[in-house]
Amino acid sequence: MDQPTSLSVPGPQTRRPGVVASIAYAGGRPVAEVPIAEAGTWSRTPGHVVWIGLLEPDEPLLAEVQAQFALHDLAIEDAHKAHQRPKVERYGEALFIVARTAQMVEGRVAFGETHLFVGRGYVVSVRHGASTSYAAVRARSEACPITLSHGEVYILYAILDFIVDEHLPVLETITAEVEGIEDRVLDGSLDQSGVERLYTLRRDLLRLRNGVVPLAEVCKRLEHPEVLPHDPAMQPFLRDVTDHVRRVQEEIESLREVLAFAFEASLLTGQAQQTQITRRLASWAAILAVPTAIAGIYGMNFEHMPELKWEGAYYVVLLVIGGICAGLWWRLRRMGWL
Amino acid sequence: MDQPTSLSVPGPQTRRPGVVASIAYAGGRPVAEVPIAEAGTWSRTPGHVVWIGLLEPDEPLLAEVQAQFALHDLAIEDAHKAHQRPKVERYGEALFIVARTAQMVEGRVAFGETHLFVGRGYVVSVRHGASTSYAAVRARSEACPITLSHGEVYILYAILDFIVDEHLPVLETITAEVEGIEDRVLDGSLDQSGVERLYTLRRDLLRLRNGVVPLAEVCKRLEHPEVLPHDPAMQPFLRDVTDHVRRVQEEIESLREVLAFAFEASLLTGQAQQTQITRRLASWAAILAVPTAIAGIYGMNFEHMPELKWEGAYYVVLLVIGGICAGLWWRLRRMGWL
Amino acid sequence: MDQPTSLSVPGPQTRRPGVVASIAYAGGRPVAEVPIAEAGTWSRTPGHVVWIGLLEPDEPLLAEVQAQFALHDLAIEDAHKAHQRPKVERYGEALFIVARTAQMVEGRVAFGETHLFVGRGYVVSVRHGASTSYAAVRARSEACPITLSHGEVYILYAILDFIVDEHLPVLETITAEVEGIEDRVLDGSLDQSGVERLYTLRRDLLRLRNGVVPLAEVCKRLEHPEVLPHDPAMQPFLRDVTDHVRRVQEEIESLREVLAFAFEASLLTGQAQQTQITRRLASWAAILAVPTAIAGIYGMNFEHMPELKWEGAYYVVLLVIGGICAGLWWRLRRMGWL
Amino acid sequence: MDQPTSLSVPGPQTRRPGVVASIAYAGGRPVAEVPIAEAGTWSRTPGHVVWIGLLEPDEPLLAEVQAQFALHDLAIEDAHKAHQRPKVERYGEALFIVARTAQMVEGRVAFGETHLFVGRGYVVSVRHGASTSYAAVRARSEACPITLSHGEVYILYAILDFIVDEHLPVLETITAEVEGIEDRVLDGSLDQSGVERLYTLRRDLLRLRNGVVPLAEVCKRLEHPEVLPHDPAMQPFLRDVTDHVRRVQEEIESLREVLAFAFEASLLTGQAQQTQITRRLASWAAILAVPTAIAGIYGMNFEHMPELKWEGAYYVVLLVIGGICAGLWWRLRRMGWL
Amino acid sequence: MDQPTSLSVPGPQTRRPGVVASIAYAGGRPVAEVPIAEAGTWSRTPGHVVWIGLLEPDEPLLAEVQAQFALHDLAIEDAHKAHQRPKVERYGEALFIVARTAQMVEGRVAFGETHLFVGRGYVVSVRHGASTSYAAVRARSEACPITLSHGEVYILYAILDFIVDEHLPVLETITAEVEGIEDRVLDGSLDQSGVERLYTLRRDLLRLRNGVVPLAEVCKRLEHPEVLPHDPAMQPFLRDVTDHVRRVQEEIESLREVLAFAFEASLLTGQAQQTQITRRLASWAAILAVPTAIAGIYGMNFEHMPELKWEGAYYVVLLVIGGICAGLWWRLRRMGWL
Repeated sequence: MDQPTSLSVPGPQTRRPGVVASIAYAGGRPVAEVPIAEAGTWSRTPGHVVWIGLLEPDEPLLAEVQAQFALHDLAIEDAHKAHQRPKVERYGEALFIVARTAQMVEGRVAFGETHLFVGRGYVVSVRHGASTSYAAVRARSEACPITLSHGEVYILYAILDFIVDEHLPVLETITAEVEGIEDRVLDGSLDQSGVERLYTLRRDLLRLRNGVVPLAEVCKRLEHPEVLPHDPAMQPFLRDVTDHVRRVQEEIESLREVLAFAFEASLLTGQAQQTQITRRLASWAAILAVPTAIAGIYGMNFEHMPELKWEGAYYVVLLVIGGICAGLWWRLRRMGWL
Repeated sequence: MDQPTSLSVPGPQTRRPGVVASIAYAGGRPVAEVPIAEAGTWSRTPGHVVWIGLLEPDEPLLAEVQAQFALHDLAIEDAHKAHQRPKVERYGEALFIVARTAQMVEGRVAFGETHLFVGRGYVVSVRHGASTSYAAVRARSEACPITLSHGEVYILYAILDFIVDEHLPVLETITAEVEGIEDRVLDGSLDQSGVERLYTLRRDLLRLRNGVVPLAEVCKRLEHPEVLPHDPAMQPFLRDVTDHVRRVQEEIESLREVLAFAFEASLLTGQAQQTQITRRLASWAAILAVPTAIAGIYGMNFEHMPELKWEGAYYVVLLVIGGICAGLWWRLRRMGWL
Repeated sequence: MDQPTSLSVPGPQTRRPGVVASIAYAGGRPVAEVPIAEAGTWSRTPGHVVWIGLLEPDEPLLAEVQAQFALHDLAIEDAHKAHQRPKVERYGEALFIVARTAQMVEGRVAFGETHLFVGRGYVVSVRHGASTSYAAVRARSEACPITLSHGEVYILYAILDFIVDEHLPVLETITAEVEGIEDRVLDGSLDQSGVERLYTLRRDLLRLRNGVVPLAEVCKRLEHPEVLPHDPAMQPFLRDVTDHVRRVQEEIESLREVLAFAFEASLLTGQAQQTQITRRLASWAAILAVPTAIAGIYGMNFEHMPELKWEGAYYVVLLVIGGICAGLWWRLRRMGWL
Repeated sequence: MDQPTSLSVPGPQTRRPGVVASIAYAGGRPVAEVPIAEAGTWSRTPGHVVWIGLLEPDEPLLAEVQAQFALHDLAIEDAHKAHQRPKVERYGEALFIVARTAQMVEGRVAFGETHLFVGRGYVVSVRHGASTSYAAVRARSEACPITLSHGEVYILYAILDFIVDEHLPVLETITAEVEGIEDRVLDGSLDQSGVERLYTLRRDLLRLRNGVVPLAEVCKRLEHPEVLPHDPAMQPFLRDVTDHVRRVQEEIESLREVLAFAFEASLLTGQAQQTQITRRLASWAAILAVPTAIAGIYGMNFEHMPELKWEGAYYVVLLVIGGICAGLWWRLRRMGWL
Repeated sequence: MDQPTSLSVPGPQTRRPGVVASIAYAGGRPVAEVPIAEAGTWSRTPGHVVWIGLLEPDEPLLAEVQAQFALHDLAIEDAHKAHQRPKVERYGEALFIVARTAQMVEGRVAFGETHLFVGRGYVVSVRHGASTSYAAVRARSEACPITLSHGEVYILYAILDFIVDEHLPVLETITAEVEGIEDRVLDGSLDQSGVERLYTLRRDLLRLRNGVVPLAEVCKRLEHPEVLPHDPAMQPFLRDVTDHVRRVQEEIESLREVLAFAFEASLLTGQAQQTQITRRLASWAAILAVPTAIAGIYGMNFEHMPELKWEGAYYVVLLVIGGICAGLWWRLRRMGWL
């Protein structure tokens, strides 16, 4: 009831390290950049919502945020150390949400984590590891005051939607790579580095799936008003984000299966290649054994070998050797061994 | 209550690009070809249902349709961009349904997407990518006014049934191809191009399954009157389409398993082939080593080798060589190595 | 209430093609062979049940049956074309049941389909493809009037039980074949035709499973009185058939797993065989290379090779060659390479 | 109410073939050995419970037992033929339970089946195939009258517990064998007989699992008082047996997975072995090709080959051949090929 | 009601073997070290909780503990023998919980078991096999009297949390090893010992999973107040431990999948290696066959071989041989075979 109209709005230069943004909104429009220490008061002002963005905050900062919104010890403990499983946890009136993020950084998938504290009148996002700033989400939300006026639920939706959509370019890059590997698998030119890439992609997809599957569960649970109390008008938005995360999940599973197929096809083409090489090896060995065997016989030192004295015998033998070799070559070629 | 009897029925020439058909029905019979701008009014006329078919519509057209039937922003957004997961979504009174279609186009499976907006008095179908026009569905429905008089539910059923049944020729083609590959796998003549085809079929089946499994779920949900309010007489029809989609799903899963079997059998026949080739290689190497070794011995230049002076020794040696070779050949043949 | 006592009982000669039998029962005993055209009247006579057996009926015949028992269009459509998924469908008061049958025909599994229409006072069975006539079921049921007096539910039970039990000889034949293949896999003598048989068995088992798994579901559902209203005394019979189909299903799954094991074991024995052959090949190559190398040296034409002049040198060399070869052979034999 | 006090207690010599024991208990203590013909009367005496043990009984014996306790036809039919799936079936007041047993007999797993009829005042056990007599269970139960006084529920518990615990030595034996196979897999010495054993173990484990998984379900269902009415004090016992069967199931699944790992590891070690052999083969082929090639050149019969005339050339050539061979040998050894 | 104030507090020297600690707490602070014989009385004192730690206790000790807290026979029997499946069992008012522990001991995963008896006013922990003492848990709990004042529920939470967290260093060690194996797989240097390690890791992970999956179920069940009656303030703690165990489970599953990938990649690199070796072998065989064949021809003893008389022919032949060999070498090198 006590509107904090007299609060001074500090400029960005006064922002603490770890705090990316800390803004109060009313009716879908930014009202003030608020220091952490006053965030709680603003959030309790009717019609106001405070949206704080933190980046790898230190313990004192988290402690201050905790004090402002009376957050639960266990959630703060989790938010401090990364490597959580995506989940939604209710502590009294507040929700604590963990999501994993993924991005392409220099051709490799980089993983990060975002923790969200959502309660009446506030959203606090805590980013760890590789993840784009939510500045874009904030800008887009501010551009659309009508929906932003739905307060914390809309902000939560906007962030989750952004996290899910960030997977799409990652999957596109992987899909393109998979197609390249496929081509190499099928024409039998998959080498050591190809196997390595195939292996790395499988690991990345495994990790992506480990982030996305529980996230789908989180989104599904947020649709229930008893988990996240919300205006019925927000329902389609929350269902929409569930839908997107499922689509991402399906694509990940498909890519995983395709890589498994590629592995199997690679075994088959590798086997076919070995057979082909063994056949060629056998063919040439057979062809080359002919002159060796025949010449060996006429290289024997018996005194009585009438052929040795015949004039022209040498040429006949050369012709016979050449003929047998050519005949063999032609027959093996026709059998597809050469 | 205000029957739009005075509306002029525009001919096909006046149809906008992106609009395939837009017809109002009453009592199961076509009443008028209606412009989009009047479609809403017609749909609200009691006893009338408007059935609009769109093909890759542009944004303004979709916006107009949205305005006519008060469709939800998120559904329109989804309908504009393809690559959705099959789903059924309820926005207020209207249903938004996404289905994936599949067809054979020049020997390859071509995939498409159909989005359906269904509400009291209207059905809007939006086609993306490869998919046959629903003109055939419309013609067949119009030929059967009694069932078409069930309005939007029957139209929805007819389109879904058509989408599901379109999978059958695709599966027949794949089945025929699989049988061809099987034969080649089992007689050991599967070559590079065969492996490639096997691989492509697995990918196509994966994609088909990804479209069909959630579609079965969609059909199942449409059977519930609280999702799609309908006359009990329509129930068997809706159950029938669920049944067909499950049959398609089962066939896809079977084909997937058969291809996995074929892959495994191919590994086995490939291995058996390698063994066979190695055996032959070894056999010929052994046979040819005999003349080389014996001739080598009599090619030595020792002064005291009595055999060299014996008349007829040469012929004896030739016979011995021939005899050993023939003996070996016969023995290896009996062992199945040659 | 109007007992059709005056109806003439037509002899088998008057039976229409497609009709195998059409008999009315009362109190568990056959009362009359009824023409299709009167079947409906008989079925509505209290205490009577009509049991009609059809074999690949044509459309007019099905239409007549439909008219007699007021069957649903969709069920008749399904019954006309085979290739349905096992299912139970309720249309008003009538049940429509699809089951797949399997038999051994000339050493191969032959598949068929049976469709059943069950309603108060009648059972209509429609057979497609390979399947034994239900004459045996009818004979056995007629031999037991007390249970047959339970009417359509008992007839349904008897047919389902027969269909399930017909799987047993099929599974026995497959089991015997699998055991034969196992022996050949384990002693490494599985040849091309063995792989082919293994492959065909896997396909047959897949198809059997596809018929049996949904059949188990059908039987389970029939146990519920709201699906199939029945006397509590019939309950154990219906549970018994569910139990049998589950037993068949378990056996199929076991055989599938055993064939997968056999495949894997075959890969292992094939690999071991290749290793063994390569070892032998290498061993003989080494042994035979000895005379070739040594004889080659003494076949050189240098003027100053003192050994060539030594009397007895030839015999010494022969002995050395023989000795080395024998030594190698003995050593390789001890290593298990030969 | 009519206590059969005057019944004569027949000695074991009068026991019919197929009847192992048939004893009435009261207050947890054996009261009388009762003939089958009086078992029903004893079981209906308040405070008494009859425990009958049968071993592969013939049909007349089963018919007599059926008459005594009014058992259902279907249960008796099942009890006569073995090869049932583990299940619990309620027929009126009586339970019919099927369980599979497993034992080590001469180093092989032997399977058997036990059928149990349990009703107010009686337990009838029917053993088929390999299974220890339940004499031990009976002795142990009689030693503990307090618990045995819980009547049929305790007897049922005692038998099931015994059946489950009998799996433990079987699993221990298999575990020991698996460990032996593992060692041979990992040092690459798995031969034909090892593959065969691995294969047989997988089949045995499959069969064990097929017996244990539905048995766990049976035990779970018996915990519900509506399936088996029992004193709450018996609850922990019934839960305990469920727990044990789950533990057995887990161990079976683990062993199955371990064998699958062993199979895969065996493929890897086999492949590594082949590579090693091929390398050795190639190495020796290269080394032995040197003298052959060089000696061949000096075995040519050209008139103008100055080296042939040089004194000492022969020794130089021998040294050169020896040197190249040694160099190759050393280099290949360093590469790990030899 | 009768506060045991006069009880003497025995020092650690009087502790029985098998008893690690036995302390009574009130208001979150240790009050007295209590002998087992008085533990029951202390536990029944309002506001007091007794926490007893046992290490592989003998039967008399367990019997004494059982007497103090009226524990169920079956639970005591289970606690005596290890090798239980993780579970939570309710016997009257008391809970019996089994958990498996895992630790790194000298580079190998060592497994242990902890059994917990939890009832109003007491917690008894029984450790078997490798597991750290819970002294650390006790110390940490005592340092935080506010939470410890929640009594037995908090102690249970603290022990479970400790057991779960002990898995983390195990998983870290395995992860590091897996990464080492991965590198060796991908550069094709995985040898016998590497395969062995890979195999052992898979077995360890299987065992870890077998302990963790049912533990997650146990933790989930403990969250329900009807299983473990607790203060709502304890709820987040119990949910937190469930969350941690799920995280551990996810990591185990990921590692299992990664090892499966590594196995498959190893097959591929092994196959590629074999192909490479066969190619090299074939290449050198071809190159070395050239001098042998040509020299063989000029080693024949025909009288009329004009080339033999040409001066310089020898050098020409040497050049030709060298040229063909070099040409072959260069071509094979360009093909990537050498």
